[in-house]
Amino acid sequence: MAVGYAMTKKDLQDRLRRIEGQVRGLQRMVDEDTYCIDVLTQLSSVVAALKATGMGLLDDHVRHCVRESVEQGDGDAKIEELMAAVARFSGR
Amino acid sequence: MAVGYAMTKKDLQDRLRRIEGQVRGLQRMVDEDTYCIDVLTQLSSVVAALKATGMGLLDDHVRHCVRESVEQGDGDAKIEELMAAVARFSGR
Amino acid sequence: MAVGYAMTKKDLQDRLRRIEGQVRGLQRMVDEDTYCIDVLTQLSSVVAALKATGMGLLDDHVRHCVRESVEQGDGDAKIEELMAAVARFSGR
Amino acid sequence: MAVGYAMTKKDLQDRLRRIEGQVRGLQRMVDEDTYCIDVLTQLSSVVAALKATGMGLLDDHVRHCVRESVEQGDGDAKIEELMAAVARFSGR
Repeated sequence: MAVGYAMTKKDLQDRLRRIEGQVRGLQRMVDEDTYCIDVLTQLSSVVAALKATGMGLLDDHVRHCVRESVEQGDGDAKIEELMAAVARFSGR
Repeated sequence: MAVGYAMTKKDLQDRLRRIEGQVRGLQRMVDEDTYCIDVLTQLSSVVAALKATGMGLLDDHVRHCVRESVEQGDGDAKIEELMAAVARFSGR
Repeated sequence: MAVGYAMTKKDLQDRLRRIEGQVRGLQRMVDEDTYCIDVLTQLSSVVAALKATGMGLLDDHVRHCVRESVEQGDGDAKIEELMAAVARFSGR
Repeated sequence: MAVGYAMTKKDLQDRLRRIEGQVRGLQRMVDEDTYCIDVLTQLSSVVAALKATGMGLLDDHVRHCVRESVEQGDGDAKIEELMAAVARFSGR
């Protein structure tokens, strides 16, 4: 069985590469003594991009791994694990 | 006047470099078809690290730029700008 | 079919009643000109209590409604709906 | 000295009363076995309303208490306290 996000693996990698570039952009901004509020605004965009990527991962996970486990009558552990991940991801 | 975060510039750069490494780690995890929940857990750590860095920036900004502006009887615009940044940063 | 959270309905109602009391407590604090930071700290607790309640709802929803739909080979719409709710709940 | 949010005290109370009503609305929804996703959507709105109220409190606090303390050459403790409150409020 392919992992859940196989179908969008390229999309995931593209997003992560873009995020890596944004983090390097933050380093450049700090190097050049960019005004703190502008750095913070850019940092908030990176957080948003990461969270959107996390939502994509979560979505794929539910559509594939969780669904398959439930179909095989074996969803309990997967659902438990999912909810813990959602809680961590939502920051609580 | 030095920018607000000058004193901790090295610390900021260290954190951002570590975050860049974590984002590359995420790419590796995806490449190696790591289980989605484990990728998501790692991604949640990167979000937390970015937010902690943002709190550091915010802290320095208030202690320096905002304080100086208020001391010079000119705090209004800075406070306005600060609150907008806090709202963006808190994700609303 | 009973709704998803039927089994913990009393627990849900107890939490919501407690939250209602906390919101009235906030009003009292404002009435009595309590120091803003103390009001804000209390308000942050109410937000946390609401989010914990939301996580409980989400958990029950996945364990019952989503699981049942998947078992009946009809999970697509439910999963779509779930992810939209998680996104709203996580504040993005 | 009046507390920071004195000028908008009525506005604050109005918001909190509306939020109290929304929490009672959630109890009614649960009583009537409303579909969990609809309860969760409503709960997400209450969280957003509370956070908006918190932003208002924070804003007033900075404009009054923090500014005054800084003007009196005594901003350190207030800024420390403010940043701790922002961290709690942003949920980390």
